[in-house]
Amino acid sequence: MTTVEHVRTDTLPTPALLVDIDALEHNMAAMGERWPGRSLRPHVKAFKSTSLAAELAARGHDAFCCATLREMEGMVAAGLGSDLLLANETLDDARLGALVAGGGRITVAVDSDATLAVARRAGVREVLIDVNIGLPRCGCPPADAGRLADEARRAGLEVRGVMGYEGHVVGEVDRDTRVEQLERSLARLDEAHDAVGGEVVSGGGTGTWDINTSVTELQAGSFTLMDTAYARLDLPFHQALAVMATVISVHPDGFAVADAGLKALATDHGNPALEGHTVWFCSDEHLTFAPGEASPPVHVGDRVMVRPSHVDPTVALHEELVVVRGGFDAGDVVDRWPVDLRGW
Amino acid sequence: MTTVEHVRTDTLPTPALLVDIDALEHNMAAMGERWPGRSLRPHVKAFKSTSLAAELAARGHDAFCCATLREMEGMVAAGLGSDLLLANETLDDARLGALVAGGGRITVAVDSDATLAVARRAGVREVLIDVNIGLPRCGCPPADAGRLADEARRAGLEVRGVMGYEGHVVGEVDRDTRVEQLERSLARLDEAHDAVGGEVVSGGGTGTWDINTSVTELQAGSFTLMDTAYARLDLPFHQALAVMATVISVHPDGFAVADAGLKALATDHGNPALEGHTVWFCSDEHLTFAPGEASPPVHVGDRVMVRPSHVDPTVALHEELVVVRGGFDAGDVVDRWPVDLRGW
Repeated sequence: MTTVEHVRTDTLPTPALLVDIDALEHNMAAMGERWPGRSLRPHVKAFKSTSLAAELAARGHDAFCCATLREMEGMVAAGLGSDLLLANETLDDARLGALVAGGGRITVAVDSDATLAVARRAGVREVLIDVNIGLPRCGCPPADAGRLADEARRAGLEVRGVMGYEGHVVGEVDRDTRVEQLERSLARLDEAHDAVGGEVVSGGGTGTWDINTSVTELQAGSFTLMDTAYARLDLPFHQALAVMATVISVHPDGFAVADAGLKALATDHGNPALEGHTVWFCSDEHLTFAPGEASPPVHVGDRVMVRPSHVDPTVALHEELVVVRGGFDAGDVVDRWPVDLRGW
Repeated sequence: MTTVEHVRTDTLPTPALLVDIDALEHNMAAMGERWPGRSLRPHVKAFKSTSLAAELAARGHDAFCCATLREMEGMVAAGLGSDLLLANETLDDARLGALVAGGGRITVAVDSDATLAVARRAGVREVLIDVNIGLPRCGCPPADAGRLADEARRAGLEVRGVMGYEGHVVGEVDRDTRVEQLERSLARLDEAHDAVGGEVVSGGGTGTWDINTSVTELQAGSFTLMDTAYARLDLPFHQALAVMATVISVHPDGFAVADAGLKALATDHGNPALEGHTVWFCSDEHLTFAPGEASPPVHVGDRVMVRPSHVDPTVALHEELVVVRGGFDAGDVVDRWPVDLRGW
């Protein structure tokens, strides 16, 4: 970060996606203490920015995982391809083949004969066996993992190990329940790893960062920026992300409207939050809220800071992360990070 | 549309946002019969593409409305600025001023002294008084509309009339309820128009296209592409939009996963639909569904057509509309329309 624009946040066009660099740096330090170097494999799907990825790489976390081919392609193009994992299945052998041919160390998750065949056709050399550990999504049954690894090795591929994501556990608010659910998931992952072998056990996320004892590398991304869903858990990471909006209308019947809606804020984890006020609903370009009675009166033209409820799909709605130092409300813009890994 | 690529849809990378041109042409014809020429003011917020807007302009609908300054700027740049309405409030006098200085006929909605002052500072010459007719969003109370119009005229602005959007009515499935709710809204709009004067009464939407009797111009956009929410109403418009996805995983426990999730499909109107199957949930990059027992078995590598539940925020997630003729499944790509009005 070298650019200092002497632009204050209160002069930016809205809605604007802001990153509090002090909070981000705190989050990277807190995570890096428990998961140093490549034991953390940051998931770029959460922030979709090679600039933010470069900040992590500069702190020793230079092995990444991605959810889409676009993210993989963008990371290689940005010179961040020293150990990239596509932690997802793909059937696109043409694009995967071009990616492999483009250099960098590329590892791909496979969970079926069909996805293994795609990896072979694309010239992939290293795979992880993706294991379903309870979330109804990708991953083979643990009992099938060994067979699939044998197939891969017979085909001349290096099987680095296993991967499994406890996505149904990471958001559980109650810690005891989270630990209990995680144990069941990790038993499945360990069973698969016993059958597959290899050095790598990849998985976990922000919500299980301090209780996942099975993985050799943690696939966390949301800890960098955080959201209100993860804020309900007992995590040491700070809210580093806000959508700055402008109040464009105040109605005498007790509601007001800001210029950020569904096209700036994901709502799949519920409505975003507006401190001191009550959010009623988001529509395409608007956020309607009831001004809090204990808060100062809201006026047309006021800036408000909206806290996203789900970091990943919110960031994916924006073109850039505006990096600020000195707080969201009247901090200075110190950098602008393109959300250059959008798309698929 | 002149480009014929001889590309079939089943070879496109996924997820891909497809437009069935036959359905779109049907929808434009059906709407144009009731609302010819400038009596239809298409809302570009629904499709965010100057290419699709140009199709409407070619059919005589060359006055448009927009929800964001970015949409206004893009329409002017594309030569589609002969009568543009910003059907929303803005406090950004700098960008609004640059827009006005850039040419085209620019009309702006105002609902308060503050937004009127912004229009004046920006050099706007024509306004509509935006009236709240029941949706908790922008618009002044009907009783304040006349005063605001007087203020605008005193300041030398032309007041073209009023605008009011019954957004709380357009999605009501029961037609009788919809008519009844609409009558209450239109009474408020008529009251405001009596006080304001001017030739224009702008409002309405796809859901009230045949029952809104007050407006002189209909602000509809969703009818072009449609979605499953509007499909539940008794409308003559066809589903012209689909997200084509690839099945990337099939689990023996009775679910399968396609490569389109929250970053390709809005879910604020509920889950999208997959004909013949049951959608369980969307996560960031995945759609998990239960294959229908009456449907042919689902295999890894199959293409599936996902029907979005809400057109506007779904289109805003994509970079382009892939225009196909001959059906979604194995049609030919006949054009590609950039979603060039994304952002704010």
